[in-house]
Amino acid sequence: MTSGNRIYLDNAATTPLSKEVLEAMMPYLTEKFGNPSSIYSYGRETRLPIENARKQVAKIIHAHPGEIFFTSCGTESSNTAIQESIVNLNCKHIITSPIEHHATLYTTEYLAKMGKVTLDFVKLLPNGHVDLEDLEKLLAESKERSLVSLMHANNEIGNLLDVDRVSALCQKYDAIFHCDTVQTMGHLKLDVSKTHFDFITCSAHKFHGPKGVGFLYINENIKIDPFIHGGSQERNMRAGTENIYGIVGLAKALEIADAALEEESTYIQDLKSYMAEELKKAIPSVNFNGDTLGNSLYTVLSISLPKTEKSEMMLFNLDIHNICVSGGSACTSGADQGSHVIRAINNDPNIVPLRFSFSKYNTKEEIDTVVKTLKTLL
Amino acid sequence: MTSGNRIYLDNAATTPLSKEVLEAMMPYLTEKFGNPSSIYSYGRETRLPIENARKQVAKIIHAHPGEIFFTSCGTESSNTAIQESIVNLNCKHIITSPIEHHATLYTTEYLAKMGKVTLDFVKLLPNGHVDLEDLEKLLAESKERSLVSLMHANNEIGNLLDVDRVSALCQKYDAIFHCDTVQTMGHLKLDVSKTHFDFITCSAHKFHGPKGVGFLYINENIKIDPFIHGGSQERNMRAGTENIYGIVGLAKALEIADAALEEESTYIQDLKSYMAEELKKAIPSVNFNGDTLGNSLYTVLSISLPKTEKSEMMLFNLDIHNICVSGGSACTSGADQGSHVIRAINNDPNIVPLRFSFSKYNTKEEIDTVVKTLKTLL
Ligand SMILES: Cc1ncc(COP(=O)(O)O)c(C=O)c1O
Ligand SMILES: Cc1ncc(COP(=O)(O)O)c(C=O)c1O
Repeated sequence: MTSGNRIYLDNAATTPLSKEVLEAMMPYLTEKFGNPSSIYSYGRETRLPIENARKQVAKIIHAHPGEIFFTSCGTESSNTAIQESIVNLNCKHIITSPIEHHATLYTTEYLAKMGKVTLDFVKLLPNGHVDLEDLEKLLAESKERSLVSLMHANNEIGNLLDVDRVSALCQKYDAIFHCDTVQTMGHLKLDVSKTHFDFITCSAHKFHGPKGVGFLYINENIKIDPFIHGGSQERNMRAGTENIYGIVGLAKALEIADAALEEESTYIQDLKSYMAEELKKAIPSVNFNGDTLGNSLYTVLSISLPKTEKSEMMLFNLDIHNICVSGGSACTSGADQGSHVIRAINNDPNIVPLRFSFSKYNTKEEIDTVVKTLKTLL
Repeated sequence: MTSGNRIYLDNAATTPLSKEVLEAMMPYLTEKFGNPSSIYSYGRETRLPIENARKQVAKIIHAHPGEIFFTSCGTESSNTAIQESIVNLNCKHIITSPIEHHATLYTTEYLAKMGKVTLDFVKLLPNGHVDLEDLEKLLAESKERSLVSLMHANNEIGNLLDVDRVSALCQKYDAIFHCDTVQTMGHLKLDVSKTHFDFITCSAHKFHGPKGVGFLYINENIKIDPFIHGGSQERNMRAGTENIYGIVGLAKALEIADAALEEESTYIQDLKSYMAEELKKAIPSVNFNGDTLGNSLYTVLSISLPKTEKSEMMLFNLDIHNICVSGGSACTSGADQGSHVIRAINNDPNIVPLRFSFSKYNTKEEIDTVVKTLKTLL
C-alpha cells in the first residue's frame, strides 16, 4: 500500500483505500448505477445495498439501522449535529474543548459569533485530558440546556476521552452529547447501547474506506430537522442523490476493520510502543505530547523536538527521504499556522511537533528506517 | 452501458459513469490517496489534480477558478447558495417557482417556516414557463432584497428558463440570482461571463460523472460564509477532506461532455423528436407536458397518458420489460406522492405522467422497442 518505497506514517490524516473495499465498490462504479430513489429494478439494485450498508454499520456500533444517516464526511456529520442541536433541541449553550477538530471548533465559534449560543471551553489537565470536574462545573452552572461536543480521540495527540463519564454527566444535567468519533470509528469498539450518545460521527477514509462519505449516528430519541434540505433520501434527513459506492465502501471498510480490530490494534499498539522506545534511545531530547504514551489511541504517536534549524526543516527533509508524517493535523500543516492542539497543551514556541500515525500496513522495519533517518537528519 | 438487454431512459435521474471517467478516477482510488491538505509530496499528488479540476471546470463555464467550489452534490450546492444568501447577502425575500427541484423548494420553504424570509412563488404560464412579467412585478414590489431561485431546465418536463432575461431582471432590481443548472450542466453551453449569475450548481452524476460530488459556482463579487464549517479546504468555503476521485471524475466528465456537446446534443435531440413522433403515431391519446416539445431541454421528453388501469401500471410493466423510465422525478416516484411539477402545470387527476430522458448511449432501435412495448401494454 505504500507505493514505491515510501513510508506512510500519516494514517490519522487519511488512509489508503483497501483493495477489498474497492472491489466491493466496483459494481456500483460500473453496471449498477441506478438512482436508489427510482422505483423500478434499477433503483432496487442500489437501494438494497444502501440499506444493507446501514444495517452493517448499525450492527457494529450496536445501534438501530434507523439511527444511521449517511453523509458526505465527518465534517458534515458534526456540522449537522451541532447546528441542529441549536435549532431543534433547545441548546443555547455549547461546551467544547480547545483541542477539538476544526469541524467542531469553527462550527461552534461561528454559532457563538452569530449570537445563537454562548460558548464555553472546558479546562484541560496538564496532560491534555479534559478536566471532568470543570466539565461538571460548567454543566451545573449553565442556565440553559447545554450541548457538550467533545472528541473521543484527539487526532493530533491521541488522548482518549472517558466517554462513559462524560455521557453520565450529560445525562445528569440533561445535556446533549455529541462525540466526534472520527478517529476511533473502526479502531476502537463503540457500543451505543452501553454508552448513551446523542450523536457520533464517522468519516470512512480514516479506516481504509473511501473519501467523501461518512455517517452521523443520531440517537433514536432525538428528533432534528435535516441540515441539507431537498429530496427524501435518508428518510428525509439528508437530501441529495446517494453516493452509493461511497456508502457501500464505508460499510465494507468498517466491517473489515471491526472483524480484525483486536488483532490489528495489538499489532499497531506494538508498533507505536516500539517506535516510542526507539525514539527515546535514538534521540534523548525527544518529548511526548499530551498523554500520547498513556491513555491514548494506539494509532497516534505525537512527539516534540527542541526547535533548531534542523528540526524545523524536519517534515520537508523526511519527505525528501520518502517518509510521510505530519506536524499537527493535515489541515493545520496545510495552512502552516502551527497546531492549535499543541499550543493548547504546551504553549512553548521552542518546540517542533511531529505526528506519526500508523495503520495495519506499517511494519517495524519501516519504523527502524524512520527513527534512523530522524536521527541522521538531527 | 445498458447492462444486459435493459433500455435505460431515465438519464435525468442519473447517468451511468463513463469508462473514461472511471479510468481518470482510478489512480486516486488506488495509489494516490494522500490528504490534499498535507504539505509533503503525498499531499501534492492529490492537491494538484483538485486545482486542475477546478481550472478545467472554470474554463468550460468561462468562470475564474476561484469561483468554483466543490461540494458533495447539487443539493448541497443549492442549500449553500440559498441559506448563505439569507445570512450574508441580506436577502429577506425569496422568489422561486412551484416547479423547482425539492433541493430548492424544501430549502426555501424551511427558511420561510423558520421566519427567516418571506417566500413568493412566481406564476407559471399555461405551458409551464415562468411568467416573466409576474417575476418583474414581484421584484418591483419587494421591499427587501430578493433572492431569485429558478432552475435552468426543469428535470421533469425539460422547460428551459430564459436565463438572460431573468438575469437582467435580477440586476435591475439588485436581486441575487441562484440558478439550479443541475440538468443543463454538461448539456448546454453555459457562459457566466456573458450571463450574470450569482450562483449556479452542478451534480456530476447527471452527465456520466460520479455520484456524491458537485460544485457551486459563486460569482467573485459575492462573499458568503461557508455552509459547512471546519478545515480550510476549498479556500475555507467548504470544509471536509476532499472527495478527490469524485472531483477528478466530475472535471473529466464535464470535459468530455463539453467537447462532444454539439454532436451529442444533435444526436439526442434527434432521438427525442423521433420518439415524440413515433408516440403520436402509435398512441393517439398521448399528451405532451409543459413545453416539452418546444423550448425544452433535448434530454427530456415528458408525456401524459389518460389514466386507465393499464396506464397506471405502466412504470411497473415497463420495468418487467426491462425498460427504465420514470413518473415524475426519481425522488417523487420513490415517495410515490405523484409529481409536484405535473400537478403545478396540469392539475388533472386523470392523467399518468411518464418521463423519458436520454443520453448519448441510447439508440433509435431502443426507442422503437419502447414505443412498441408501450403500445402493447396499453
Ligand atoms: C434540477 C435538479 N436540481 C437538483 C438536483 C439534486 O441533485 P443531487 O441529488 O445530485 O443533489 C437534481 C437531481 O436530483 C435535479 O434534477
Ligand atoms: C477528529 C476528527 N474529526 C473530524 C474530522 C473531519 O473529517 P473529514 O475531513 O473527513 O470531514 C477529522 C479528519 O479530518 C478528524 O481527525
